Amino acid sequence: MSTHIPWRSWRHVTKLDPDKENTPELINRVLESGTDAIIIGGTQNITLEKVKHLKMMCERSNFPVVIEPSQSKVVDLSFEYFFIPYILNSQDKWWCGGAHIDWVHSLRKVFGSYDKIPWEKIVIEAYVVLNPEAAVAKVTKSAMNLTMEEIVSHAVFADRIIHAPIVYIEYSGRFGDPEVIKAVKENIKYSHLFYGGGIDSKEKAKTMGQFATIVVGNIAYDNIEKYYNTIF
Amino acid sequence: MSTHIPWRSWRHVTKLDPDKENTPELINRVLESGTDAIIIGGTQNITLEKVKHLKMMCERSNFPVVIEPSQSKVVDLSFEYFFIPYILNSQDKWWCGGAHIDWVHSLRKVFGSYDKIPWEKIVIEAYVVLNPEAAVAKVTKSAMNLTMEEIVSHAVFADRIIHAPIVYIEYSGRFGDPEVIKAVKENIKYSHLFYGGGIDSKEKAKTMGQFATIVVGNIAYDNIEKYYNTIF
Repeated sequence: MSTHIPWRSWRHVTKLDPDKENTPELINRVLESGTDAIIIGGTQNITLEKVKHLKMMCERSNFPVVIEPSQSKVVDLSFEYFFIPYILNSQDKWWCGGAHIDWVHSLRKVFGSYDKIPWEKIVIEAYVVLNPEAAVAKVTKSAMNLTMEEIVSHAVFADRIIHAPIVYIEYSGRFGDPEVIKAVKENIKYSHLFYGGGIDSKEKAKTMGQFATIVVGNIAYDNIEKYYNTIF
Repeated sequence: MSTHIPWRSWRHVTKLDPDKENTPELINRVLESGTDAIIIGGTQNITLEKVKHLKMMCERSNFPVVIEPSQSKVVDLSFEYFFIPYILNSQDKWWCGGAHIDWVHSLRKVFGSYDKIPWEKIVIEAYVVLNPEAAVAKVTKSAMNLTMEEIVSHAVFADRIIHAPIVYIEYSGRFGDPEVIKAVKENIKYSHLFYGGGIDSKEKAKTMGQFATIVVGNIAYDNIEKYYNTIF
């Protein structure tokens, strides 16, 4: 495994969606906010062109910009890292292995051999998707109504069995249960923890930020002043 | 990851089925054959009682006996290793993650905390199941008709993405394509390769043994003299 693991030092990450209105002013404010990194990712209407355009807008020397590809076709090899979602509680094999095998297969064709694939750029984010109302929960057929212990067991599987570099607890659209994040944090040993969902204030940012790298998305588009408050 | 990885030095492994007739004479002949280790595993009618009985029959000082549990209930903690099948080409999430998360969850209950689980004993065998006629292919709803390149991509996913200690190419019941085993061997870097299926002669043992640890099962029950020929 790579010894160069910068995301462990990130406290606050901003997720930008190529399908939303990304004005130069918005991007500048995000880059100057104090956020530690940008993830370019979205679930709908994503094209390589939109991704590349947004990446170009975000370019500053040494500012980390990673891509979270929604499909194996959207690959821009100039990115430093690809954060690949793997949905631990999906009931559809595609989201927890199928797409990833397909991705390996596609990359082999692009690079000519498995050895030439830049494996150090490929970072598995092992998600537990927990908000049944979110589009991502429906698209991925994620199992809902997990108990706190079941959520932790999913995370520990990612940590100890498949050695995922990142475990990502995703409540996308609503603020989650801090006790869940605390329990996951206490029980994973090697994986680094990300939390996303409903962070729109300093208090919420701090609550989750004591356990995890927080990922802030929608609020940057909805209310840039509130977004600034999430930098703690 | 554990630095104690004895299976890398095994050339020939014998798989014994607790549901078959395991006479003391048969077990003695197997143990004296020159095989490097025994895997106790089966798919039908397996009970903890049968597993324990067979294990007791196999006990010799320092002779490696591992269990391949077919279900999380069959756990005898006195085993040195648990080889846990994970079916890479299963289309049913249960066989490629679901059962394993369930297993983690059960073990936590047995041991009281995740930290107390003996993780070093738990070894993932990432299978590609390739004989459509075999019971295991049907039970696990494994995708069939994979091209050689697709098979290799499954193995590389296991090797590079989920870091499986063992990749296991399984033709159970028939002898596989040596070109497939060669291609897998050439493209995996960290995982150790096992091959199983249809080995009933020295020639077949040697053919696959140049690329993989071979696993021999049925022939020990069907014809012990032929079984002896597979020790090369």
